[in-house]
Amino acid sequence: MSSSFGTLFKISTFGESHCAGVGVVVDGVPSRLELSEADIQVQLDRRRPGGNKLGTERNEADQVQILSGVENGLTLGSPIGMLVKNKDQRPGDYGSMSEVPRPSHADYTYRAKYGIHASSGGGRSSARETIGRVAAGAIAEKFLLENYGIEIVAWVSSVGHQDAGEIDLATMTREQVDASDVRCPDRVAAEKMTAEIVAARADKDSVGGVVTCVCRNLPAGLGEPAFDRLEAKLAHAMLSIPATKGFEIGSGFAGARMRGSLHNDPYVQKGDRLGTSTNRSGGVQGGISNGEPVYFRVAFKPPATIGQEQKTVDYAGNETILAAKGRHDPCVVPRAVPIVETMAALVLADLIQIQKMRA
Amino acid sequence: MSSSFGTLFKISTFGESHCAGVGVVVDGVPSRLELSEADIQVQLDRRRPGGNKLGTERNEADQVQILSGVENGLTLGSPIGMLVKNKDQRPGDYGSMSEVPRPSHADYTYRAKYGIHASSGGGRSSARETIGRVAAGAIAEKFLLENYGIEIVAWVSSVGHQDAGEIDLATMTREQVDASDVRCPDRVAAEKMTAEIVAARADKDSVGGVVTCVCRNLPAGLGEPAFDRLEAKLAHAMLSIPATKGFEIGSGFAGARMRGSLHNDPYVQKGDRLGTSTNRSGGVQGGISNGEPVYFRVAFKPPATIGQEQKTVDYAGNETILAAKGRHDPCVVPRAVPIVETMAALVLADLIQIQKMRA
Amino acid sequence: MSSSFGTLFKISTFGESHCAGVGVVVDGVPSRLELSEADIQVQLDRRRPGGNKLGTERNEADQVQILSGVENGLTLGSPIGMLVKNKDQRPGDYGSMSEVPRPSHADYTYRAKYGIHASSGGGRSSARETIGRVAAGAIAEKFLLENYGIEIVAWVSSVGHQDAGEIDLATMTREQVDASDVRCPDRVAAEKMTAEIVAARADKDSVGGVVTCVCRNLPAGLGEPAFDRLEAKLAHAMLSIPATKGFEIGSGFAGARMRGSLHNDPYVQKGDRLGTSTNRSGGVQGGISNGEPVYFRVAFKPPATIGQEQKTVDYAGNETILAAKGRHDPCVVPRAVPIVETMAALVLADLIQIQKMRA
Amino acid sequence: MSSSFGTLFKISTFGESHCAGVGVVVDGVPSRLELSEADIQVQLDRRRPGGNKLGTERNEADQVQILSGVENGLTLGSPIGMLVKNKDQRPGDYGSMSEVPRPSHADYTYRAKYGIHASSGGGRSSARETIGRVAAGAIAEKFLLENYGIEIVAWVSSVGHQDAGEIDLATMTREQVDASDVRCPDRVAAEKMTAEIVAARADKDSVGGVVTCVCRNLPAGLGEPAFDRLEAKLAHAMLSIPATKGFEIGSGFAGARMRGSLHNDPYVQKGDRLGTSTNRSGGVQGGISNGEPVYFRVAFKPPATIGQEQKTVDYAGNETILAAKGRHDPCVVPRAVPIVETMAALVLADLIQIQKMRA
Repeated sequence: MSSSFGTLFKISTFGESHCAGVGVVVDGVPSRLELSEADIQVQLDRRRPGGNKLGTERNEADQVQILSGVENGLTLGSPIGMLVKNKDQRPGDYGSMSEVPRPSHADYTYRAKYGIHASSGGGRSSARETIGRVAAGAIAEKFLLENYGIEIVAWVSSVGHQDAGEIDLATMTREQVDASDVRCPDRVAAEKMTAEIVAARADKDSVGGVVTCVCRNLPAGLGEPAFDRLEAKLAHAMLSIPATKGFEIGSGFAGARMRGSLHNDPYVQKGDRLGTSTNRSGGVQGGISNGEPVYFRVAFKPPATIGQEQKTVDYAGNETILAAKGRHDPCVVPRAVPIVETMAALVLADLIQIQKMRA
Repeated sequence: MSSSFGTLFKISTFGESHCAGVGVVVDGVPSRLELSEADIQVQLDRRRPGGNKLGTERNEADQVQILSGVENGLTLGSPIGMLVKNKDQRPGDYGSMSEVPRPSHADYTYRAKYGIHASSGGGRSSARETIGRVAAGAIAEKFLLENYGIEIVAWVSSVGHQDAGEIDLATMTREQVDASDVRCPDRVAAEKMTAEIVAARADKDSVGGVVTCVCRNLPAGLGEPAFDRLEAKLAHAMLSIPATKGFEIGSGFAGARMRGSLHNDPYVQKGDRLGTSTNRSGGVQGGISNGEPVYFRVAFKPPATIGQEQKTVDYAGNETILAAKGRHDPCVVPRAVPIVETMAALVLADLIQIQKMRA
Repeated sequence: MSSSFGTLFKISTFGESHCAGVGVVVDGVPSRLELSEADIQVQLDRRRPGGNKLGTERNEADQVQILSGVENGLTLGSPIGMLVKNKDQRPGDYGSMSEVPRPSHADYTYRAKYGIHASSGGGRSSARETIGRVAAGAIAEKFLLENYGIEIVAWVSSVGHQDAGEIDLATMTREQVDASDVRCPDRVAAEKMTAEIVAARADKDSVGGVVTCVCRNLPAGLGEPAFDRLEAKLAHAMLSIPATKGFEIGSGFAGARMRGSLHNDPYVQKGDRLGTSTNRSGGVQGGISNGEPVYFRVAFKPPATIGQEQKTVDYAGNETILAAKGRHDPCVVPRAVPIVETMAALVLADLIQIQKMRA
Repeated sequence: MSSSFGTLFKISTFGESHCAGVGVVVDGVPSRLELSEADIQVQLDRRRPGGNKLGTERNEADQVQILSGVENGLTLGSPIGMLVKNKDQRPGDYGSMSEVPRPSHADYTYRAKYGIHASSGGGRSSARETIGRVAAGAIAEKFLLENYGIEIVAWVSSVGHQDAGEIDLATMTREQVDASDVRCPDRVAAEKMTAEIVAARADKDSVGGVVTCVCRNLPAGLGEPAFDRLEAKLAHAMLSIPATKGFEIGSGFAGARMRGSLHNDPYVQKGDRLGTSTNRSGGVQGGISNGEPVYFRVAFKPPATIGQEQKTVDYAGNETILAAKGRHDPCVVPRAVPIVETMAALVLADLIQIQKMRA
C-alpha cells in the first residue's frame, strides 16, 4: 500500500468505504496561506455523489474538518490533517457478493495481495478513497491560484460514443462546466451524454467516458527530467485515479500518426516571452513546461459493478451468476472532474516548489 | 533534475549527448544473480542507432563496462555502476542551431529552466540519456525472468497511419519482433511501416508511431494502491521516455466508449488459480495485477528535429527559417522498443520486491 | 516541514499543541495483524504526562481512535489513520510569551522559518507532536514482537548527575522499568533521580537526562549500507525526538578512547549461529545487525521552559526578563522512554520489511 | 543496500574496494556553478591514505574524472557523474581471512545479509566507499560557500585518551587543521595524539578518536521538523560513515547533566538579527538552525582489522587465531576529517534547497 504522493508538497491519505472516516495529511503547504474549511468543501461537494439525477442516490454529506495546521485562518507551515466522517455505511447491500469476486473489480486482486478484504463495499479501492485527495487538492489549487495565477479546469469530453465538440482551452471556466449535471460545457453533447447515462442505468449497465483538463498560466520551467517529467508525473497522478485506463497529453495518440513538419509547434514572440503558434505539444517540451497551456485527456472505463446478471465463478471456481444489488454509479466521469483537477493541482504544486529552489 | 527511478530496485542515470560518458548506478539488485556485460550489451545493441537502414547513420558502439557490484560473475548486493563512453560527438553539426530553439524540442525549455543549455545536441534531453536506463533494465529483466519467469516483449504496432494487425500477446517473442528492422512482427504491416519511414526521410521529415508491450507470467498482487498502482507506475515510467505523448493499458481509450456489461472480464477457473476469459482490464484490477498478461500501448510523436525548413523565431524573437543539418532519426519507435521493455522491467522489479515483503 | 518517516513501514504525523487533534497515518502495516485501540493506548498512557508526581499536572486523557485500516480486529493492509483529540488547551497560559522568544526553545526558529508561529504553546515543536509517533510505534512493536519475537525496552539511565548502575540488557522488562515513576530500574539510583527532579522543580528549574534502550532477538542482516545503516537510521530517529542532543550505540564515545585489541568482539559459537562473547559493537557491524542485542543511549537536554527569571531580549531586541507561567515538565526523560522505544520500533519494522525482500 | 542520500541535492554512490572503480552520481546540483576536477580533487587528496606517516602505506592516486553534467567549466543542472578508478588492488593480502570473519568487522554481517561477500578486502564496507561521498561533498561545499558563504571545518578533537584543548569555533580554518598530520589544530595535543597512533601501530593495534565539526554562516531556518530536523539529518549522515559509534550536537551528553537555567542560551541583539550569548544548543533549536554556528562531535571506534593475534572462531564455529596481514590504518580519524565535512555539506546543501522553496 502506498498512500503518499508528492516530494515537497506531499499527501498521505487514509480511509476506506465503511470505516470511521476518510482523510488526509497534507505536508509541505507553505505557511501564511489563508485557508478555511469552506475552501475545501467546494471541491468535496463537486466530488460528492447524489447531487444530481446522474449519480447514485446515496446522500453523503462529506463535511470536512480541519484537524491541524491552520490557526486563525492561516496555515502554520505544519501538516494539515483533515477528516471526513463516514455516515451512510449500509454494509448489508454488499454482503451477497463476498463469495464471488465482482468481474473487473478489485475484490479478487485485493484478496490476492493482502489475504483479506474489507467485508463490505470496495474497501480502499472504492471511490471514497478519493475524498482525501480532493481535500488536499483544494489546498494545492488555492496555493497555485493565489501565488501564481494558475487555473485548472476539467470537463467531460466524452461519455460512451458521445463526444463534445471543440472547447476553448483558453477561456473555459468551472462555472461553464458545472452548468450541466454531466459536466460537459458543450450543451448539445451534454444532452446526448446524459441520455447515454440514463439509458445505461435503465439497462442496469454502466458506461465509460473521458475527462479533459487544461492548466493555464504555468510558468516555463516546471518538470524534472529525466524521470519526473511534467507529463510523467501527470500520467502517474491520473492513472492512480480508480477506473482510469489511459492518459494522453497534447496531440496524444493522434500525434503518433502525424509527421514532424505538421506536428512541430513553431515559436512566435508573445509579449515579452517566446510562445508557440500551435500547441500540439500540450505545453510540455522535453518534460518541462514551456508557458503554453498544458492540456491532457484521461480515459475512464465503465464502472465494474452493474445490476445486470453476469456469468462468472466464485472464489472456489464454481460457476455462478452475479447481479449487484444496491445503488451504483452508472458513469463516473462527471464526478471524476474534480478528482482530475485535484491530481493535476497536486502535481503542479509539488513541481513548482521544486523549481522554486532554483530561482 | 530528477534522475532516479524506483523505491527498492532503484536507478540513477547520468550523462548527456556530448560528455565523456553516460551510465547508471543500479541499487537494490539482489545478490548472487549471475551477471556479465554480455547480458547488458544485448539490449544496448537493440537500442543503438545505425544498425539498419531506418535509423541514423551514426556509428555508436555503446560498449558497456560494469564498474562495480559484480565479482566472479555474481552480483554482490552492492550498487552496480555501469559506464558507456561517448565516442561519436561531432558537436559542430549542431552549432548553427544555438541561437534558434528548435520547434517542439527541449532547447527552449531547458534554457528556461536551467539558464544554460548544453552547447551542442540535445544535452540531457537527447536519446543518449536512455542508455543508462536500458543497461539497468537489462538487469531487471534478467532478475524477473530467472526468479519469476516473467517475460516482457514490446513491438511497433503503428508508424504514422500504418497499423499492425492482431498480435498474439501470449506467444510473441523478441526474435519475431526483431525479424524486421522496423520491429513490427506483422510482416505485411512492417513493409508498409518501412515505406512510411523511408518516405518521411526522403521528405526531410519525421513520423510518429506506437509501441505495444506485453508482460507475461506476473503473479497476482503487484501494485501499491492508492498512488503506486501498477498502471500508474507504468504510465509514469513510459511518459518519462523522450517523445512520448500517451499511454493506455488494456482497453484504454477504446474502453471509455464501452458499457460495463461488455467491458467486464468474467472470472473462470484456470488450473489452480482464478483467471479471466477476456482481458480488457489489461491484467490489472484496482491497481493490482491479477495474473493475466499486462499489456499497454505508448504513443510517440514524430521527432522534432527535421531537415525541412521551418518558419520560427530565434531567442530574440526575430523571425527566421530553421533547417536542421546533420543526421536525424526520421522515426524513433523501432529503437524505442527496448526502452519500453526496460521501463516496464524497472517498474516490475521494484513492485515485485515491495510485494515480497508481504509474503 | 517533513512529517513522514520510513520507506515501507511509513508514518505521517500531524497536529500541534492547541489544534483540534493530533494523529498519524501509518502506511505499510502488513494485513491480518490483530489490532485494537487498547494495543495502542498502552504506550500512549505511558507517554502521557500527569500520571505521577514527576510530570506536569495537566490531565490529558489522550484516548486514541482508529479511523481506518482495521476491520473486525484485523488490519486490512490499508493505511491506519489514528486520532487523539486535544482537550486541555488553555492557550491563555502562554499569551505573555508571544513577544519574547523563550531561550533555547523553538519560538524563534519557527518564526524565522515559517514567518508565523502557533499563537500559544509550542505548536508543532511541542511534545504533543509525539503522540502520533507513539500510536504508530505501538503497531510497529506489535508487528515485531508477534512476527519475530523482537523486544524493545528503554529506561532512564541518568538524570542530571545521577547515574543508574549496571542494567542487565538481556532480561530487563518494561514492568521493571515502570516500577518507579522515574522509570529507572535501579531502585537506589531511581530515588536519587527522583530527588534531583523534585529539587529542580522546587527551584523553578529543569534538568536533563539520558535514556538507554535495548532491542533483543533481532535477526542478523538488518540495515541498508551505505547510507541507511542500522545505526544511522536509529540516530536519525532518536535525534528527531524533541530535546535530544546526542546518540551513541554500543561502546559509543567511550569506545573512541579504546584500542582495537580491547574493543573488538571475538566470535564464538552460540547454538546454531555465530555470536560474539562481548558486545561493544552494540549489535551492529558494518551497519548491519549481527544477531546480538542492539543497545544505544540518547541524551536529552533540560527542558527550555522554566519558571525562573531569565535575562533575554524580545523580538525587537529590547532587554527583558522572562519567567514562564503555567505548568512545565522539569524533566522529560521518564516520559521519553516510550518515545525512544517507539522510534526504535519504527526503524526496525521498516528495515525488517526491506530485508524481507531478499529472503 | 541503500546507496542514495538526500532529497533534492541527492547522491548515489557505487564501488567497493577491489572493483574497476568507485564513484557517484550527484543529482540536483544547481546549474551555472563553476566546477572543475581540481575543485573535487582537493578533498579527495585530503581523504587519501598514504600522505603521511600516520596512515597506511598504500599509494592510491584517486584521480577523479567528471563524466557528465559539466560543460565549459559550468554545471548544466544535469546529474554529475564522477569516477575514480581503482589501481592498487592486491587482493592476495586478504585471502587468508576468507574463512574467518574478522572480529568487529563487516565480514560476518555482509555474508548474513547478502549470502555472499566480496572475495577480498572490505568490499562495500571498506573506506573506499567514501570516495564517492567526498567527491560529491566537494561540490556541495562549493555551492554552499559561493552562494551563502557557509564554511565547514572539521578536526580531530581526540585520539584515544588524548584530547585537544579549547578550539575557537569562529575562526578555525582547514589550513590550521592540516598543519599537523593528525589534523588536530592544538599543537601540543597533536603531538600526543601522534604518539598514541605510533604506539598503537607499534603494538600491531589500533585506536579510536573523535572528530569535531563546525558549520558557520548558516541562515536561520534550515531543518525540516518533525522528522528531518537539522540535528537528525546530521546524525543520520554521520552515523552512516564507517566506524562511527556516536554523535552529539552542542552540549551533547554533557548537556544531559545540566539544569535548564544554566543550559539555556539567552537571546541578545547581534547586528540586525537576534543571536544568543552562549551556544549550548549548537546552533539548532526545535530542529531548525538559529543562525549561530552549528557544531557537533562524531565518535569513531578503533579500526577492527589489527595485526595482533585475536582468539575467535571461523564460519564453521571452530576456534582459531586471527592476525591480519597487509597494511592497515591504526587510526581513521585524521582521514575522517574530510568525510565528516562532506556529510555535513551534503545535509546542508539539501536542506538549504528545501528551505529555498519557502522564500
